[in-house]
Amino acid sequence: MSTFSDLATLYRQSLLDDVIPFWERHSSDHEHGGYFTCLNRDGTVFDTDKFIWLQARQVWTFSMLYNRVEPRLEWLALAKHGADFLRAHGQASNGDWYFSLSRHGNPLVQPYNIFSDCFAAMAFGQYALAAQDDEAASLAQATYRNILRRQENPKGTYSKLVPGARPLKNFALPMILCNLTLEMEHLLTRDEIESTMDACVQAVMVDFLDPKTNLVMENIAPNGSRVDSFEGRLINPGHTIEAMWFIMDIARRRGDPALIEKAVDVTLSMLEFGWDNEYDGIFYFLDRLGHPPQQLEWDQKLWWVHMETLIALSLGYSLTRRADCWEWYQRVHAYTWEHFPDPEHGEWFGYLNRRGEVLLPLKGGKWKGCFHIPRGLYRCWKIFEVME
Amino acid sequence: MSTFSDLATLYRQSLLDDVIPFWERHSSDHEHGGYFTCLNRDGTVFDTDKFIWLQARQVWTFSMLYNRVEPRLEWLALAKHGADFLRAHGQASNGDWYFSLSRHGNPLVQPYNIFSDCFAAMAFGQYALAAQDDEAASLAQATYRNILRRQENPKGTYSKLVPGARPLKNFALPMILCNLTLEMEHLLTRDEIESTMDACVQAVMVDFLDPKTNLVMENIAPNGSRVDSFEGRLINPGHTIEAMWFIMDIARRRGDPALIEKAVDVTLSMLEFGWDNEYDGIFYFLDRLGHPPQQLEWDQKLWWVHMETLIALSLGYSLTRRADCWEWYQRVHAYTWEHFPDPEHGEWFGYLNRRGEVLLPLKGGKWKGCFHIPRGLYRCWKIFEVME
Repeated sequence: MSTFSDLATLYRQSLLDDVIPFWERHSSDHEHGGYFTCLNRDGTVFDTDKFIWLQARQVWTFSMLYNRVEPRLEWLALAKHGADFLRAHGQASNGDWYFSLSRHGNPLVQPYNIFSDCFAAMAFGQYALAAQDDEAASLAQATYRNILRRQENPKGTYSKLVPGARPLKNFALPMILCNLTLEMEHLLTRDEIESTMDACVQAVMVDFLDPKTNLVMENIAPNGSRVDSFEGRLINPGHTIEAMWFIMDIARRRGDPALIEKAVDVTLSMLEFGWDNEYDGIFYFLDRLGHPPQQLEWDQKLWWVHMETLIALSLGYSLTRRADCWEWYQRVHAYTWEHFPDPEHGEWFGYLNRRGEVLLPLKGGKWKGCFHIPRGLYRCWKIFEVME
Repeated sequence: MSTFSDLATLYRQSLLDDVIPFWERHSSDHEHGGYFTCLNRDGTVFDTDKFIWLQARQVWTFSMLYNRVEPRLEWLALAKHGADFLRAHGQASNGDWYFSLSRHGNPLVQPYNIFSDCFAAMAFGQYALAAQDDEAASLAQATYRNILRRQENPKGTYSKLVPGARPLKNFALPMILCNLTLEMEHLLTRDEIESTMDACVQAVMVDFLDPKTNLVMENIAPNGSRVDSFEGRLINPGHTIEAMWFIMDIARRRGDPALIEKAVDVTLSMLEFGWDNEYDGIFYFLDRLGHPPQQLEWDQKLWWVHMETLIALSLGYSLTRRADCWEWYQRVHAYTWEHFPDPEHGEWFGYLNRRGEVLLPLKGGKWKGCFHIPRGLYRCWKIFEVME
């Protein structure tokens, strides 16, 4: 196995010499602003719709690089290119963020999805730092507070569930708030940060965590009990593991080694449960009771699941030096680096079938953009750099 | 290849000795009424939610068997078992049909999906004949007319699209109405039948059909033009081919051999486009321009796609005796009968991966119930019986 120094170099070079240049070359829409995210294997554009998740995430990525790696003006300009488009077109009149826009910025899909707002807040929070832009800062704050206001009923009138019939709490929002609150630390009051983090840690590590199996549920009853339905049985290993490095970040900030240990434990439990012992890689969806999941894509191997797992395992190892954590890191590293990067055209494939063969050759689409891979490469680079 | 007589026997025996007994044995909920449809490979129940599509389709299947195969009282009783449950619990106060209910019949998911109504109308239309039940007949008629009233805006307030931003017409409703109108012939006026059939044939064979490629689009602009978006590029081979046998039924009724020829042409064009030349079988979703589809399950091989294709090809061959149609029948027959039936526990697998391996071992779930397989086995049996 490589030294920590080799690993730091691998992640840094992959980020700065491969992945970021790919998006710099192919994703700007010079005519109408914003980014193209639907990119073929070679970077050519196959669809021009603009999805708020991905527009915002790319603004965040280039702002983050400018803030944390080095203040390259072309990175700031590329962040501004997306931020201007989002500011001009992204919000409905009530301040909620649309789900998608046309190439020209006309709204296509309504603000039914609160994660558009989460990524917009994340984008403008990071962009405000980079551009020293007070309006961007205010927009991030207003969006963040709007999320907290909407959190009990995030889908609003777009929910298809009969009210009260089988109420469920979903894991995704408390999970994202763990990360978003730290991302926006410079824009929130100390009280806001601490109270949101308390609530999120309680949700992620207590309410949604099943103490018997050490697995995180995607959906639970309001009283915290397990629900025996498709939604109530759903396990999303990548989601859980991504949340675990969010928790490690919080635990490190709070100086709470017991919480770090627990997050590593959950990461490893989920890997034991979610690893494909036949073809390797981490499954996309599972049923906690072993029943057939309703998601037909359940056995596929996705880029973000594997990249988030590399962050959780490298961070977990750097904080605990646990041998079991390092063994898993090596296993996931070998699979990920063998299967996802595209040596011919650069960047990473997103969607592999169960056997690890490319299922869709795209580099970007409706859900894959310039986010998980660069964020993960940056985090792992820095983690190994400190360890070397 | 087998004789027509062998084929008739194969389909009849499979229907009456394998598939129907499987549902008779495993699907009745004797405590709370209605059917269990989430059945493991061996028929044991893994989820008790009741999806209106599948409840209604099973009522239709057992009523149809009673009406068309033979008047077995146990089939009528099983149809009544589902019809009573649907009547007691299936509708919202405005007459729209819910999408799903709990085991006890409490509504879980709102009536956002007009196909619940389509299958309810189909169920009660057929059940009214079997049970000689006037209330069921009235319910079928009222539901049918409610569908026609809602057809311009079937999702109502549950639509997430910004009104007017990129309006699309969807293929599924006109397609289903082709079949539903013939199914309900005994309950509709001659004017209703003819005007709905005219509109449906125009939609399916003109508006949604691309004359250059002979492929059917799933979504078109209101003026009939192609749209270059994920939805506008979507091709669903099984959907198209199922619609082609609906059209053949209409064309035969109307004595229109040119329409029959055209439906066979479209079936074969779609098979050329949608066949997997590497692993055989028909793809689930494709993009008409060859771009990556947004559906991650695009390359899977589904039970209903293959069964509907066997109907279209056997019916097309019986009506035209075209050699190209028969060649395709043999090819799809060989694939389907080799891969889908479960010799160990009976009934058919629903979901295979691209290589034809079982992806989910279930016999029934949220979308697979007692419908496509028995309907297809019945139709093919009768088609080959006439030809023998």
